Amino acid sequence: MKKIVNDPSNIVDEMLQGMIIGHSELIQRIPETGIIQRKTEKSGKVAIISGGGSGHEPAHAGFVGEGMLSAAVCGAVFTSPTPDQILEAIKAANEGAGVFMIIKNYSGDIMNFEMAQELAEMEGIEVASVVVDDDIAVEDSLYTQGKRGVAGTILVHKIVGYAAQQGKSITEIKELADNLIPNIKSIGLALTGVTTPGSTQPSFVLAEDEIEYGVGIHGEPGYRREKLQTSHNLANELLTKLVNEFDVKPSDRFAVIVNGLGGTPLMEQYVFTNDVQQLMDERKLSVDYYKIGNYMTSLEMQGLSLTLLYLENDFYIEALNAPVTTISW
Amino acid sequence: MKKIVNDPSNIVDEMLQGMIIGHSELIQRIPETGIIQRKTEKSGKVAIISGGGSGHEPAHAGFVGEGMLSAAVCGAVFTSPTPDQILEAIKAANEGAGVFMIIKNYSGDIMNFEMAQELAEMEGIEVASVVVDDDIAVEDSLYTQGKRGVAGTILVHKIVGYAAQQGKSITEIKELADNLIPNIKSIGLALTGVTTPGSTQPSFVLAEDEIEYGVGIHGEPGYRREKLQTSHNLANELLTKLVNEFDVKPSDRFAVIVNGLGGTPLMEQYVFTNDVQQLMDERKLSVDYYKIGNYMTSLEMQGLSLTLLYLENDFYIEALNAPVTTISW
Repeated sequence: MKKIVNDPSNIVDEMLQGMIIGHSELIQRIPETGIIQRKTEKSGKVAIISGGGSGHEPAHAGFVGEGMLSAAVCGAVFTSPTPDQILEAIKAANEGAGVFMIIKNYSGDIMNFEMAQELAEMEGIEVASVVVDDDIAVEDSLYTQGKRGVAGTILVHKIVGYAAQQGKSITEIKELADNLIPNIKSIGLALTGVTTPGSTQPSFVLAEDEIEYGVGIHGEPGYRREKLQTSHNLANELLTKLVNEFDVKPSDRFAVIVNGLGGTPLMEQYVFTNDVQQLMDERKLSVDYYKIGNYMTSLEMQGLSLTLLYLENDFYIEALNAPVTTISW
Repeated sequence: MKKIVNDPSNIVDEMLQGMIIGHSELIQRIPETGIIQRKTEKSGKVAIISGGGSGHEPAHAGFVGEGMLSAAVCGAVFTSPTPDQILEAIKAANEGAGVFMIIKNYSGDIMNFEMAQELAEMEGIEVASVVVDDDIAVEDSLYTQGKRGVAGTILVHKIVGYAAQQGKSITEIKELADNLIPNIKSIGLALTGVTTPGSTQPSFVLAEDEIEYGVGIHGEPGYRREKLQTSHNLANELLTKLVNEFDVKPSDRFAVIVNGLGGTPLMEQYVFTNDVQQLMDERKLSVDYYKIGNYMTSLEMQGLSLTLLYLENDFYIEALNAPVTTISW
């Protein structure tokens, strides 16, 4: 796999520098760390932070800004950031009203974010968190107990970020997030494997006519391989699995993310969206909000994921529609 | 090449439907055409339109909206839209002050847009145009006399779109565009070929360790193949060629686009940006504006292009910084 890189061991550092160069009006980097912080004035509100391994860009640093994250902690490629980096992000983001952490469900992330929380609490900072486990494909994956956290995480950033911007307390935000998580379900499919920088081999290999359903954003195994289907059939497979997770009735309302995994052109994402809408129409389910593009990627992997958010209450859609000043929302 | 499609012959139609489904608040499609039109109220200003073959998404429909294009005409994949479609777009976009067309320099586009202009003028609509030929890589390419039009086109959309929004006349806009074009230079490189939907073979094949400089956005030949270099060396090759096109002196100011060709992850685009900035610093050239992401793509091609806009006058940067309501700017 050819990549546009220099020394693979510096790739995250150089990426973060490039991000700052490109968007210095919005974000800053805490020097010599993987922490990207927004440039807005502090106003005493709850700070929202997230992070994890790099390689999923624009997640999470692309969602740092007014109305979403206060800071993102970027680890090495596909590797959790260390507790001391997360602690530093907590301290940098804190505006005095506590820090709320959005954690994707990977064992390394859970361990390190929790350790950082303990350290921050010893310094007198109130910290709470939520774990996102929206990927319904498999239980107990390579790096995960339970279900993986994938593209649905950006909806948590947006809705929880809006609540913080509205001045809600950390207790209210925790309650909001806990209620939100069960309403978000995702599932993906891959056309190709993914190769980490410096590796010579992809994490897995698919044949020229083969796809895999349920692959994770680090190339974790999915639940079935088969020959490539039409976009309509792919959409039907994923959507059926997602809808079965909800106790739906006609005219139920959803927000939908069609998320490219990094190497899939926008043209294919729009074709797939057209199929998703037809399938939702057939089920008499309403889509009140769409987000289509590359949001939670896996380096250059070709494929996509589909996320449904059940719009259980009006606050969700109000939050999704609120303006933000981020690079990538 | 695996693709997420249904019938390849319907791909543009289904893509446009997906785009409308996802962004119905911003754009609408003239039924049974490839025309995407913005939903804003008409206010008697000059209308800006563009278009060309599909497969370069988000160009051009992603740039339809307040402050940029009034409409985009989307042809079949890598195929110019027909004169009657362009004429229909002209008529739909016209607000009574004339229509200005931004055309990429491909023979089919030139012929069809000019024919549409003649037909529109016969119906009493004032039409003017500019041809974008920013790709310095080669002269007289597969589908082009002179130089090709590539990612720099989106800067023309933005700056000319802002002028129209400010209420400038079609004569003023024509003069602005004519002055702007020589200030925009682009050049690209490819890590992989590109396969059009329905084809079994890519337009060209590169070896596992090989890249090609100067490739066009339809897979047209570039000017040299060699082994993959570091990002820094790639940036140096492209930037040196671009800078040589301008008569630069220290502290000259530029806007820069680092444009992914469709299959290149954001991580690599940011690494490359970091190298571009270092190389600009070494030359004591200032970058006052960056745009990094997938803007003018070539389906799933891996690679990127670099664009420099010499900021000859302050209007350019004012225009680039002005807010718009488009899907993808």
